[in-house]
Amino acid sequence: MSESDVVTAAILVIGDEILSGRTKDVNIGTVAEFCTDLGIELREARVVSDIEDDIVAALNALRTRYTYVFTTGGIGPTHDDITADAVAKAFGVALPINAEARDMLESRWKTTGTEVTEARLRMARIPEGGELIVNSVSAAPGFRIGNVHVMAGVPKIMQAMLESIAPTLKGGRKIHSVSIPCRVGEGTIGGPLGQLQAEFPEVKMGSYPQMGQSFVMTELVLRSADEMLLAAAADRVRAAVAEAHRAAGLPDATDAY
Amino acid sequence: MSESDVVTAAILVIGDEILSGRTKDVNIGTVAEFCTDLGIELREARVVSDIEDDIVAALNALRTRYTYVFTTGGIGPTHDDITADAVAKAFGVALPINAEARDMLESRWKTTGTEVTEARLRMARIPEGGELIVNSVSAAPGFRIGNVHVMAGVPKIMQAMLESIAPTLKGGRKIHSVSIPCRVGEGTIGGPLGQLQAEFPEVKMGSYPQMGQSFVMTELVLRSADEMLLAAAADRVRAAVAEAHRAAGLPDATDAY
Repeated sequence: MSESDVVTAAILVIGDEILSGRTKDVNIGTVAEFCTDLGIELREARVVSDIEDDIVAALNALRTRYTYVFTTGGIGPTHDDITADAVAKAFGVALPINAEARDMLESRWKTTGTEVTEARLRMARIPEGGELIVNSVSAAPGFRIGNVHVMAGVPKIMQAMLESIAPTLKGGRKIHSVSIPCRVGEGTIGGPLGQLQAEFPEVKMGSYPQMGQSFVMTELVLRSADEMLLAAAADRVRAAVAEAHRAAGLPDATDAY
Repeated sequence: MSESDVVTAAILVIGDEILSGRTKDVNIGTVAEFCTDLGIELREARVVSDIEDDIVAALNALRTRYTYVFTTGGIGPTHDDITADAVAKAFGVALPINAEARDMLESRWKTTGTEVTEARLRMARIPEGGELIVNSVSAAPGFRIGNVHVMAGVPKIMQAMLESIAPTLKGGRKIHSVSIPCRVGEGTIGGPLGQLQAEFPEVKMGSYPQMGQSFVMTELVLRSADEMLLAAAADRVRAAVAEAHRAAGLPDATDAY
C-alpha cells in the first residue's frame, strides 16, 4: 500500500473545560481505537479552547492535511457552543437553521414536553452543504461537511455518532455494522452483552441509551470487518435481547420498536 | 491585567501509542489541572506521533506562541524515543551525552545492578544549553531548554517532574472557582447564563450536564482571578438558577441537591 492509499485522520477536541482540567478528555482514546479498527491512521490530535479563531485555524490546518477530521464538543445550546460557527467560517459558508435538524429536535422535544427556545434552536444550525450525523441518544445532530465530521463532546453521544458514520468512511478495512434495538436498560442487558463481547472479541459491541424518551430504549451496535462473525454475534445478541424482553414482560420481537 | 501579563502554556504529547488507542493519555488532564492551580492558562494541547518532522513542527508552532510548552513522552531508551533529537533540531543545537545526566543514571543503575548499554545511555543525551529536570521515580531526567519542558510519558514520572519544575515557573494569578448545581437542563439555563456571561466577561462561566443521573443535573462552574467579581457573578447565577427552579416547580435552594 503506497502512502497515497493510506487513509489518515486527526481529531480536534473543542472546549475550555478540557484545557482547565475540569473535564478529562476520553474522546481522543475512543476515536483512536475507532480509527485503528477501521484501518484509518490517526495522525494527530489537538485540543483547543472555545475561541473561534483558534478553532478555525486548527480546523483549516487539519482538514487540508488529513483524509478525515473528527471534532468533538461545542455543539450544545449555550453561548460557548461555537463549533458550528467556526466550521461555517472555516468553510466560508452560511449557518442557517437546518429544517431536517429542526424536525429531529422538535419531534424529540414533543415527546419530552421540552419547550422550543432560541437557545435550543442553536442546535439546529448546520453549515450550508452539511449532512446530518444522527444522534440516537439525545436527538441533537452532528454534521459532516467536506472531510470534517462534527460530533458532540459527551462521550456516549460521540460514540453513537461514530457508529453512525462508520459505514460512510473509507478505511483500510471495510467495516460492517448491525444495530439492534433493546427495550431494557444498560444495567439489564450489560451483563449478557459483556459475556457475548468476551465470546466474540473480533466484533465490537457498544450500547447507547436513548435519553429523553418516554420509554427505555438502548441501541446496541455491533461492528466487525468479518461479516460472518458479525452475523453470528448479532444472532446471539438478538437472542439475549429477546430473553431480556421476555423476563421484563415485553414482547420479544426486537424489530417491533 | 493586560494580555501580556497572562502566562500561557501548551502541552505536546508525543507517542504513536496514544494515537493508536493502545495507551489512553492522562497527561493532558494532569497538566491542565497543574496549570489551572498555578494560574497558568493552558491554551492548547496536541498529540503527535513518533515522527521527527512532526514533533519539530509542533514544537516550533507552540513554543513561539505560548509562555511555556510542556512535552510528555519519547524520552526512554528505545529507537522510537526521539523527543530529545526533535527538540535539539527545533532549537538548532547539538545533542551530546550530558555528564550530570549520565551520573544520575549510572548511580541509579549501580544500586539496581543495571548494565550500562548504549541504548540506555540515549537517555543521558540532553540538548546543549538544556537544564535537567529531576526524575525522582526512575532517575532518567527530563530537561528544560528555552521555554520548553521535556518530561516523561509515564504519568507517575511526569507528575513527579511537574512537581519539581513548579517552583521555577512564573504563575499568572491564583484562580478561584465556584460550582453551582442546577436542576434544569442546559437548554433552559443556557439563555440566562449567556446573558450573565456577557455581563461578567472577566468571569468564565461553563455548564456541564451530568448524564446517567436519574434526574436532570447541570453543574455551572464560574472561574475568575477576581474574587469580588466572582462572588458577585455567582450571586447572580444562583438567582437565575433559583428562578429557573421555581419556573420548573422545583424547590429554589440551589444547595439542596
